[in-house]
Amino acid sequence: MTGISVLPVAGLPEIREGDDLAAMIAAAVALEDGDVVCVAQKVVSKAEGRVVDLAGVEPSEEALRLAGDGDPRKTEVILRESARVLRTRPPLVIAETRHGFVCASAGVDASNAPAPEQVVLLPDDPDGSAERLRAALVERTGRTVGVIVTDTFGRSWRLGIVNVAIGAAGVEVLRDHRGVLDPTGYELHSTVIALADEIAAAAELVMGKTDRVPVAVVRGLSVAGGGAGRDLVMPPEQDLFR
Amino acid sequence: MTGISVLPVAGLPEIREGDDLAAMIAAAVALEDGDVVCVAQKVVSKAEGRVVDLAGVEPSEEALRLAGDGDPRKTEVILRESARVLRTRPPLVIAETRHGFVCASAGVDASNAPAPEQVVLLPDDPDGSAERLRAALVERTGRTVGVIVTDTFGRSWRLGIVNVAIGAAGVEVLRDHRGVLDPTGYELHSTVIALADEIAAAAELVMGKTDRVPVAVVRGLSVAGGGAGRDLVMPPEQDLFR
Repeated sequence: MTGISVLPVAGLPEIREGDDLAAMIAAAVALEDGDVVCVAQKVVSKAEGRVVDLAGVEPSEEALRLAGDGDPRKTEVILRESARVLRTRPPLVIAETRHGFVCASAGVDASNAPAPEQVVLLPDDPDGSAERLRAALVERTGRTVGVIVTDTFGRSWRLGIVNVAIGAAGVEVLRDHRGVLDPTGYELHSTVIALADEIAAAAELVMGKTDRVPVAVVRGLSVAGGGAGRDLVMPPEQDLFR
Repeated sequence: MTGISVLPVAGLPEIREGDDLAAMIAAAVALEDGDVVCVAQKVVSKAEGRVVDLAGVEPSEEALRLAGDGDPRKTEVILRESARVLRTRPPLVIAETRHGFVCASAGVDASNAPAPEQVVLLPDDPDGSAERLRAALVERTGRTVGVIVTDTFGRSWRLGIVNVAIGAAGVEVLRDHRGVLDPTGYELHSTVIALADEIAAAAELVMGKTDRVPVAVVRGLSVAGGGAGRDLVMPPEQDLFR
């Protein structure tokens, strides 16, 4: 292992609905076999048209109650994207999305939306988005690459948000060390590494929130595989904190 | 930004109590200004002698009750390292450590211990450990580097463990984007990035659990700063899940 590199993909234009992300990425970076292309959820969602105009949203009673000093129309969109609301502190809503992700605002966000008074939703099927992008990149470049769709999530107990994988294709998502022996002969037990989340975190270090670098390439790993973002959702019966 | 690299530091010997980690690291890698040296907690703790022989541990009633089919002496050590027990599912204990970290087994671990029948504890003061190592590396190499002491923690809601920062010195730990405008003029709100956790995650990608690479260098970031691992502990009054 000689190390890995994390490369920002700069120079992408503002992404609009219907844009061919694969063509734009392939034009902006010379991909190599084994690269993991990490793409911020925001641009995937924008390309897929997952944008809502708040002007057309009528807030429900619950949205008005939970919005606090926030925009109740945004809260209404959050509630519509939520399978379950876990915690509220108006205007903050922590929700479980239909995908099973637990995050602030069910992933609904106004920052970097195409226009004011709009919010961007998570992709409908982030693993499907990752797979379509992967297939298109392979088709276009002839390179065997993986794709991770990322978003920044908060955590319980720890301050700050970190980039995680919400969709994946062509990559190993969880690496299971259980049963492996350490150098002293001790068998590792609860050691399943959330590899795709660590790759997403590494990618964020060069992406930045405001400098329009929504794509990064992680190069030098050996992580080809068949994992999916949904694999990272802890099954409720295993979750001691649900 | 031309990207970053994450370099494994190979060839370190097995670490024993009293070892000079800074000397070993400086001998194994040519550090450059701005490097962030990420060191697995396990080797920091071993160098500091934070190792307990289970032979001398008498389990309490509570340890016997919580150990299930595990070793009640290990559970006893876990309880001694815990400020508060959050969840139990014998033999699993999720606890808050004296440092404020919430993690499995209060960070107590038998894997990669110096010998069988031993467990390794978290450093007593991970930020102090990081600062001592940073100062010694600067002294020895003349390079301005940062240090992060890392450990792998589980998360609520998501499967798998990820590497996080439990101690830091000379690096920016949280990067606050609040008040910054996105390209459409929208002001970012809850956007504080847990930079040190993302750096730790990136480092883990080259460290591995069993291949004796307990140190990695993250190169190419501009993250000099004065943060600490304790800054990443969410204050209880802010924590909706405590």
